[in-house]
Amino acid sequence: MTTSTTRPGELMAAEIEEQPAVFDRILLESSGHITKVAARIREASPRFVLIAARGTSDHAALYLKYLVEVVLGLPAGLASPSTMTTYGARPLLRDVLWVAVSQSGGSPDLVESTRVARDGGALTLAVTNAPGSALEDAAELRLDIRAGRERAVAATKTYTATLLTLWLLVDAWRGGDGSAARSLPPLAEAVLADDSVLALAPRYRFAERMVVTGRGFSYPTAREAALKLMETSYVGAQAFSGADLLHGPLAMVDQGQPVLAIVSPGAGGEAMDPVLTRVTERGGDVAVIGVASSSPSHRCVLVPGDDHELAPLLQIIPFQRLAHAMAVARHNDPDAPRGLAKVTQTF
Amino acid sequence: MTTSTTRPGELMAAEIEEQPAVFDRILLESSGHITKVAARIREASPRFVLIAARGTSDHAALYLKYLVEVVLGLPAGLASPSTMTTYGARPLLRDVLWVAVSQSGGSPDLVESTRVARDGGALTLAVTNAPGSALEDAAELRLDIRAGRERAVAATKTYTATLLTLWLLVDAWRGGDGSAARSLPPLAEAVLADDSVLALAPRYRFAERMVVTGRGFSYPTAREAALKLMETSYVGAQAFSGADLLHGPLAMVDQGQPVLAIVSPGAGGEAMDPVLTRVTERGGDVAVIGVASSSPSHRCVLVPGDDHELAPLLQIIPFQRLAHAMAVARHNDPDAPRGLAKVTQTF
Repeated sequence: MTTSTTRPGELMAAEIEEQPAVFDRILLESSGHITKVAARIREASPRFVLIAARGTSDHAALYLKYLVEVVLGLPAGLASPSTMTTYGARPLLRDVLWVAVSQSGGSPDLVESTRVARDGGALTLAVTNAPGSALEDAAELRLDIRAGRERAVAATKTYTATLLTLWLLVDAWRGGDGSAARSLPPLAEAVLADDSVLALAPRYRFAERMVVTGRGFSYPTAREAALKLMETSYVGAQAFSGADLLHGPLAMVDQGQPVLAIVSPGAGGEAMDPVLTRVTERGGDVAVIGVASSSPSHRCVLVPGDDHELAPLLQIIPFQRLAHAMAVARHNDPDAPRGLAKVTQTF
Repeated sequence: MTTSTTRPGELMAAEIEEQPAVFDRILLESSGHITKVAARIREASPRFVLIAARGTSDHAALYLKYLVEVVLGLPAGLASPSTMTTYGARPLLRDVLWVAVSQSGGSPDLVESTRVARDGGALTLAVTNAPGSALEDAAELRLDIRAGRERAVAATKTYTATLLTLWLLVDAWRGGDGSAARSLPPLAEAVLADDSVLALAPRYRFAERMVVTGRGFSYPTAREAALKLMETSYVGAQAFSGADLLHGPLAMVDQGQPVLAIVSPGAGGEAMDPVLTRVTERGGDVAVIGVASSSPSHRCVLVPGDDHELAPLLQIIPFQRLAHAMAVARHNDPDAPRGLAKVTQTF
């Protein structure tokens, strides 16, 4: 609930702006602890990684899945907590690292499934913005994302703080020193200083449906962007991996359909070429977020930086700002979306 | 492409009707081979299952994930083929069963990632409707889903044939004799004989957006139902697990939003109670597919059968019929949706 003295969206706007400072704080204060946790994990040498999360944290989980698979060469999966909480599964999880991600650390299904995973032999790690939470208690290892209190219901700084914490963990696990992340605070400042994404908001004022798409490391960004648009602007935003979009949902794309495509530097971005071609052929109204598009019919929002692993930490910021601007233009309060509370309890 | 002698949707309608006969054929002809494949897998005793698929087959993959986790107590994950094809990951997959699901057996990213998985030490299984396909060649083990040629672009009988083949595989793996599936052909006949779902089609004639939701074993049904609605009626259909819906997307549900909820017999269905309560509070226009709803404000389409593992094979049928009826009412041809081909190639 917001207090009567705030303007609609004031909290969300402030928390979006805070992200460079949160990156700075994590780089300054977390590295030592993350290195210790990574050392514990390397010692256990897990062979599989399972990640459990809900909502925005589920998109951070998907980012971690790509990092684990691509950077560490380990198989990874997103856990379905209901298999344990609803159906009573008690899986054998020796050699498994179980990572539960939740900013509140409070959702009962995550706490319960983390307990079950630990009983099943998994090494368990809780990644939260809530030291002392039930989820932290349930897990053997913990990482605090240090985002500070988040007051807007729509999560922004806790999302990017989680991504950075997870990237630093995986980087330490592979033996890195985290130095590639040092450029993030100034890059995030540069993203925030570029208002070109705000020009898209009036264009989408009356859009009922939107498609957001990306591949590889940028697919979690598509998922998180769609959720921000849904929960603040109440638009029917749908996220697809570029490949999955071509396997069916492409049929619903027409001239009335705004398509937001995330195109990264490198191979993940190049893999979007056939997707952009097909969507443009279908008459979709395309905006590209990331690198410049070669098509004059595409609107572009450039995001600086050339590291594809870290690109998701920057690419989500224009979407957060777009969701905020669209919500305010629609007379919604993105700090307190209808029907939602800050902590969602599912069982 | 359809021939000039067919009516719009004629092929899809015929393939929907064919499903009881396909179930019969699989039960009659496949059991012996499936038992042999299951024995090979048991002998290898994998400790982790990775499943790779796209489009409709990805929903069959999700069904397999729930079966593996709940029935076998093994951790499972959905593979992201792009980690191998785009980013060049070469994961270590000893003790892993890799299952690639594709009705055409032809998508290059699945063929390539299956080769990489086999090189990485995984036991590989191809599940296709295409004996002799490139995917079958790439894998060590094969299962033919025996659905017969599917001509409509929107997959129907290949989806349920895949689910039955996968259920029989998991049942044989746990030491079952497959007998629980024997009731499927008559139950599918009963579902097809009940036209109550068709009464919903005129109601949704002008719907632009729809939400489909289910939990546990019924979540894959929600995903597949949304895809059918998108690719035939071009409606913006969004699928959410019941739990994830409450973590954000609920905000976009209002009086203008049809919500289709799949409620199964047993624990998975009971876990939908809080979801139905919240969605109804938000003013969503709710239809329940599965068991009867206790709320007089909900429309209901009953689906017979009381086995929650097998319920997805029956619950999807009313959605296939709804998608077909909505498409025809909108003057679309569900046999040949705009922008799509029967075999989609992604890399």
